[in-house]
Amino acid sequence: MAFKRFQDFLGNLVKRQRKLFFAGNEKVSINELLEKLMGTVGEVSGIVTARQVLDHYSELDSESKFNFFKTLESDFNAEEGSVKEAYDNYSKNPSSSNLNLLSRVTEPKRHELLRRLNSTPDATHNLVSMRKDLLDYVKDYQKLKSVDDDFVRLFSSWFGRGFLVLQTINWSTSASILERIIRYEAVHEIKDWDDLRSRIEPRNRRCFAFFHPALIDEPLIFVEVALTKEIPKSIDSILEDKGGESFDPLEYTTATFYSISNCQPGLKNISFGNFLIKQVVQELQVEFPSITKFVTLSPVPNFQGWLNKISDDEEMKLSDLKQQIQQLDNTLESIEANGDLIEISVFNYLLKAKKGKYPLDPVARFHLGNGASIYQLNRSADLSEKGIRQSWGTMVNYLYDLNDIEENHERYATEGVIEYSEKLKTLLIKN
Amino acid sequence: MAFKRFQDFLGNLVKRQRKLFFAGNEKVSINELLEKLMGTVGEVSGIVTARQVLDHYSELDSESKFNFFKTLESDFNAEEGSVKEAYDNYSKNPSSSNLNLLSRVTEPKRHELLRRLNSTPDATHNLVSMRKDLLDYVKDYQKLKSVDDDFVRLFSSWFGRGFLVLQTINWSTSASILERIIRYEAVHEIKDWDDLRSRIEPRNRRCFAFFHPALIDEPLIFVEVALTKEIPKSIDSILEDKGGESFDPLEYTTATFYSISNCQPGLKNISFGNFLIKQVVQELQVEFPSITKFVTLSPVPNFQGWLNKISDDEEMKLSDLKQQIQQLDNTLESIEANGDLIEISVFNYLLKAKKGKYPLDPVARFHLGNGASIYQLNRSADLSEKGIRQSWGTMVNYLYDLNDIEENHERYATEGVIEYSEKLKTLLIKN
Amino acid sequence: MAFKRFQDFLGNLVKRQRKLFFAGNEKVSINELLEKLMGTVGEVSGIVTARQVLDHYSELDSESKFNFFKTLESDFNAEEGSVKEAYDNYSKNPSSSNLNLLSRVTEPKRHELLRRLNSTPDATHNLVSMRKDLLDYVKDYQKLKSVDDDFVRLFSSWFGRGFLVLQTINWSTSASILERIIRYEAVHEIKDWDDLRSRIEPRNRRCFAFFHPALIDEPLIFVEVALTKEIPKSIDSILEDKGGESFDPLEYTTATFYSISNCQPGLKNISFGNFLIKQVVQELQVEFPSITKFVTLSPVPNFQGWLNKISDDEEMKLSDLKQQIQQLDNTLESIEANGDLIEISVFNYLLKAKKGKYPLDPVARFHLGNGASIYQLNRSADLSEKGIRQSWGTMVNYLYDLNDIEENHERYATEGVIEYSEKLKTLLIKN
Amino acid sequence: MAFKRFQDFLGNLVKRQRKLFFAGNEKVSINELLEKLMGTVGEVSGIVTARQVLDHYSELDSESKFNFFKTLESDFNAEEGSVKEAYDNYSKNPSSSNLNLLSRVTEPKRHELLRRLNSTPDATHNLVSMRKDLLDYVKDYQKLKSVDDDFVRLFSSWFGRGFLVLQTINWSTSASILERIIRYEAVHEIKDWDDLRSRIEPRNRRCFAFFHPALIDEPLIFVEVALTKEIPKSIDSILEDKGGESFDPLEYTTATFYSISNCQPGLKNISFGNFLIKQVVQELQVEFPSITKFVTLSPVPNFQGWLNKISDDEEMKLSDLKQQIQQLDNTLESIEANGDLIEISVFNYLLKAKKGKYPLDPVARFHLGNGASIYQLNRSADLSEKGIRQSWGTMVNYLYDLNDIEENHERYATEGVIEYSEKLKTLLIKN
Repeated sequence: MAFKRFQDFLGNLVKRQRKLFFAGNEKVSINELLEKLMGTVGEVSGIVTARQVLDHYSELDSESKFNFFKTLESDFNAEEGSVKEAYDNYSKNPSSSNLNLLSRVTEPKRHELLRRLNSTPDATHNLVSMRKDLLDYVKDYQKLKSVDDDFVRLFSSWFGRGFLVLQTINWSTSASILERIIRYEAVHEIKDWDDLRSRIEPRNRRCFAFFHPALIDEPLIFVEVALTKEIPKSIDSILEDKGGESFDPLEYTTATFYSISNCQPGLKNISFGNFLIKQVVQELQVEFPSITKFVTLSPVPNFQGWLNKISDDEEMKLSDLKQQIQQLDNTLESIEANGDLIEISVFNYLLKAKKGKYPLDPVARFHLGNGASIYQLNRSADLSEKGIRQSWGTMVNYLYDLNDIEENHERYATEGVIEYSEKLKTLLIKN
Repeated sequence: MAFKRFQDFLGNLVKRQRKLFFAGNEKVSINELLEKLMGTVGEVSGIVTARQVLDHYSELDSESKFNFFKTLESDFNAEEGSVKEAYDNYSKNPSSSNLNLLSRVTEPKRHELLRRLNSTPDATHNLVSMRKDLLDYVKDYQKLKSVDDDFVRLFSSWFGRGFLVLQTINWSTSASILERIIRYEAVHEIKDWDDLRSRIEPRNRRCFAFFHPALIDEPLIFVEVALTKEIPKSIDSILEDKGGESFDPLEYTTATFYSISNCQPGLKNISFGNFLIKQVVQELQVEFPSITKFVTLSPVPNFQGWLNKISDDEEMKLSDLKQQIQQLDNTLESIEANGDLIEISVFNYLLKAKKGKYPLDPVARFHLGNGASIYQLNRSADLSEKGIRQSWGTMVNYLYDLNDIEENHERYATEGVIEYSEKLKTLLIKN
Repeated sequence: MAFKRFQDFLGNLVKRQRKLFFAGNEKVSINELLEKLMGTVGEVSGIVTARQVLDHYSELDSESKFNFFKTLESDFNAEEGSVKEAYDNYSKNPSSSNLNLLSRVTEPKRHELLRRLNSTPDATHNLVSMRKDLLDYVKDYQKLKSVDDDFVRLFSSWFGRGFLVLQTINWSTSASILERIIRYEAVHEIKDWDDLRSRIEPRNRRCFAFFHPALIDEPLIFVEVALTKEIPKSIDSILEDKGGESFDPLEYTTATFYSISNCQPGLKNISFGNFLIKQVVQELQVEFPSITKFVTLSPVPNFQGWLNKISDDEEMKLSDLKQQIQQLDNTLESIEANGDLIEISVFNYLLKAKKGKYPLDPVARFHLGNGASIYQLNRSADLSEKGIRQSWGTMVNYLYDLNDIEENHERYATEGVIEYSEKLKTLLIKN
Repeated sequence: MAFKRFQDFLGNLVKRQRKLFFAGNEKVSINELLEKLMGTVGEVSGIVTARQVLDHYSELDSESKFNFFKTLESDFNAEEGSVKEAYDNYSKNPSSSNLNLLSRVTEPKRHELLRRLNSTPDATHNLVSMRKDLLDYVKDYQKLKSVDDDFVRLFSSWFGRGFLVLQTINWSTSASILERIIRYEAVHEIKDWDDLRSRIEPRNRRCFAFFHPALIDEPLIFVEVALTKEIPKSIDSILEDKGGESFDPLEYTTATFYSISNCQPGLKNISFGNFLIKQVVQELQVEFPSITKFVTLSPVPNFQGWLNKISDDEEMKLSDLKQQIQQLDNTLESIEANGDLIEISVFNYLLKAKKGKYPLDPVARFHLGNGASIYQLNRSADLSEKGIRQSWGTMVNYLYDLNDIEENHERYATEGVIEYSEKLKTLLIKN
């Protein structure tokens, strides 16, 4: 709620400023505006021009936006002469002050441009959504990668950990935020307000989100948690238990993170998730000392994709397994009948299918990279159409043990080592 | 108040985290810690190490701190080889991506170090106070200027305008913040809590401050305002009017900014003041539509210093004036008797005594740089010992007219032009 | 929001207290509990017993509840002996102290009982819902009227104007409260969350509610307002204008109260509505100085009922009118074609159909009793099935003119005088 | 803080309403105003008249106030005729409805008057201060006791437990409230803001207060608490320990309530204290599970007064003791040398000096009446001038053991039994 008031406060500020500053701005071209923005000395006129650029941008058609980004890429670099001069000085005498000078002149002008744009009220919203557009163009026009790099560098600084605010999301949260939670849920769709309520109001359900003071009412990432007496073995056992009636906080032993959603496509690669889970674990430990197991109930999104791809350098036995599964019917009966086969395949997929030294599966990569370990596989745990299509219904419990995550993380980060629980050992196939 | 709640929230978070993270840190040297911090992969261990560095630093003696900064200057630059390689690539092909690469490798490692330090709860406090120390060493050891540059670059980004929160300071503000207002008042000392109360509680007094979410309870800068029916001609008429009893908000026509104090020496050169005044002007316009004049009642701190200095290139008449004043007694009678002489001298000092193209007087520089103009000079306006010593009792009303400040600012910034009101023209001496 | 925090605070208090106080209460009969409650000396045990009574009550079946109320009626009166004695003293010497004594002993014991029940956390909720039950039994068993009288006397004191808190309801309000707004809307049904949003989020829509600190998250009464440039002539022009896009707060001239809903059946006859509207008028005047007309758009719920009833003492011409209307088809065409006839009838109904000296129509009684006047009748203003059934589609604008409401109210309250605007005069039929 | 916001909200409301309602009230006599107030039908005019009465009252001189109360006593009773009629009905048929009627007509008109006065914004402040005046007049003019009775009955209802809000007072509390804490401290004077800070900021100090939504910024009662490892034996060990530096919340075992102050003389006999302590005990138990002892460090204010009074029916040995003490010097040496004698006397005073069946000492009466027991006596525990004068420096630890307080309270309330700890038994003198 604290944050809510802060948002109100900022919101009013923004409204008032806009009213006072932005009367009668006749239209000029966006390039003229950019030029004006980089040339302005005055603070107030800078703010007005920044707002004009952002408003102008938002009304551009797709091609003009593309051109706008191309201009950023081509025209907002550094002055080659200054770079040469600074480098010559530095190469003669690599002192810290010569390095600083070099560092300043090599900073692409885009940085200053983005900073100036961000000085106008509510600009951060616009810039995050501008980058969302940019990401589309980058795919087809690699040169824009440089522009994106600059966004990433600035966003990483602005969205530093120290500025993120963890908020509980519950039935007392404002409708304005809840509406976004419904919209942004990316893993297990929230159908309507009643469905939302069943996820955040029962006493054995929790939801936490990160917010940032400059993005009013906008969650950055959120996680949904179920508090239970045992590790849940299927997603339906969570989504369909509306209960919590017989809840006694002292009896709960397990917190399951069953859905994590990033909300802002424009903040891609600015990572919040790893810290979110750790902070939530701490919050829950304080509130429920009886909870000792913190696990996820996670999908295996890339399993089927991996099955479909033939790989030359694969172990024989693994290729065999892949073939066997592909010949199965994807009926519930068949899935149930072939539980062992599927479980073994998924486990070996998680451990052996790689992208570089890390797992191919993005969800595995996220949690293992956070220092979690593979705790358990659950057959027929998600029998939705999507669940069957992705992973033949299998879901994974990743375990967050605060005692181990640092060590797990270091070994994973440096050597790619994946931790898993003792009992899973038998599933590992060996050639 | 919004902000207060936000602070509470953050404060609790910080406390909890510290308890959870920071048990049993045995002492190692600060250099070992720095090395560890730059080497850590894990997030949690990074946070712990950062806290250890900051705690360790705060216990160092002065010489060790000096050495710490020297280490930052000498050991946290860039890899010369990488810089050379990146530059060679860039000089062959100055593409945006090559520039970006060059820009990255030329970024001094100090930046990354400071960012990592700032990832631990409450670190911003420590870093601001670290820079306060640093500023002392820079004076004697110019090489540390590079280190300070890096602080400035990072602080400018973290304390961007979008993150500053304007708060009203009044008798309902928390004692914790008020106590700092007493301590930080730099212009007209606040003697005790009663004195404070007389400045913030009466209905014709206002006080506004900027805060930042990462510096809990710490004002960055604040301004004290008197609402009156006429432009006040002396500081005592403000400080000694405890009244406001017969206050009718509809009758007030003038808001006088009579004291502006920067609170954080560690944020020197990160400018907040220019925007503070403009935002306060807007706040007051909304609340009191009848107020049309926004002025300061400002000291002239360097006038006497200028009198004492002989300058070769000065106009004859000016030198004459200086001499005449220096021969005066600084008794109240003498000051009153020589009002014309003093007023003319101060005015010409403001306009003609320069540091580069800008005024020598720092207060004049501040307000004129904000786009204000010189509105009026007030004789015998500050007859305190300090007021007489600095400027023979003279104070200045600078005028903030929102219609003109942009244009004033641009002309001042580019050409050093100083605006003053028509009626002052006669005071200007000409050779 | 202020209130929200206050609610949070109280809510936590209640939860904590319950946990601490209410462990292991074995079941006893409700009459035993009542006896215990009236006999307890200790505060803590009193609180526990009160909670037990309330919990016990809520689990009773309908007959047992009836018996419970009968017990209240028969067993919680006064001691006749004491009354006689106090009266004898008083009749000999009607001093203020003898009156006070008499007043104390004649207070029904039910008062003390209700006060003791209300001392336990969250009891007010229970008591309000207890009275809701009671109102059902009163209909069939008039003796319980005495019990209800006692509820009314206590509720009037507890829900005094000084304790009511006006809150804006908007899209930032908590889902918990919004959900109740949907549920409690009694005039124009809110279909779902999207419908709700269209009533509270657009900039030309407002919603205000009264809350009470002891009824957490429970609105007592709320009013929905549309801000427009003209007085709206039909309810659809309000409910279907999702817009507000081209909103300029300076252009709006009219605030229309188009729906007022009492939320708590258990607070029947504790009046909040008259003050709500006046306070909202003031809020809106401050925010929108350009709004000068405050009107309702109200249904005429009893018109058809009045048509159906034959009354002997009616003016001839009025009876004629009634007959003519009853012979109409209630098709849209017919309603439109007979607009004059319907309008005249409704107007004369409002002015002449009486219950005592006041209007028969409850909505007219409410607004005229508040000091409003009849400003305008709108034909075909509510063509919903309900609108046609009640009043042949006619709606009324009652006008709240703060300059007149006091005088209007006094004349209405003392003499039953109904004010209406000049232009309606021609509609008045005279024999 | 929640409450703070609520206060802000209410405060704004009040200000706005006053501005809107109260323009141009010409002066009339207070009796005319009272008449008008009782006669008004309209709500708004009632509110204005109420405000006029209250403002008029506050400007009366002492004699006029006295007359005002006399008028209340003589002219605002009941209509004797109506009372007779209602009583006759009741005596014929003592039904609940006849009782209710009788109860209504016997209610002194003062009740309705006070309720109407309280309907105007901020009236509760005025009424509380009105009663403060009244209490002065009651002493000399017993008839006014009836008027006071009416205040007490209404205040008891308005200040019911359900409306009291417990707030922590600390260094983040608003100066406006802290200033009142300084002013209202009644036991151990707070000298200035630094002294205040030393009582509320250290981590081993707490302060809690009750507030009421209708009395903005006004604490009703507050208690100061010290958290320690042992039961403190002297008040200086608390007041002079500014420390708390080496605080580890896990080590503390004892919470000592060393000062309880009622803030509102106008709320005399409306009891808050007993519940305050119990609620604070609960708050502390939740925050510090290691604290198991909740004691007071209390003065013995009436001991010396008792010594000075000769009582015929006293036990011989007790009279002896009294005489012995009275012959002592009140020098520190003498007090120390006669520690046993003083301790025995104080203990026997607490147990045997009575007012009715309860202890003569008001502090003992308060805590024992709450269900506390006498835990320990501390010699030379308050060697201030006041401490020596009152009780020869002795202070008492009363123990609040939540397991026993109910039973203690019941035995005390019904039989006057005083509980004390086993080890004190030897101090009891027997004839």
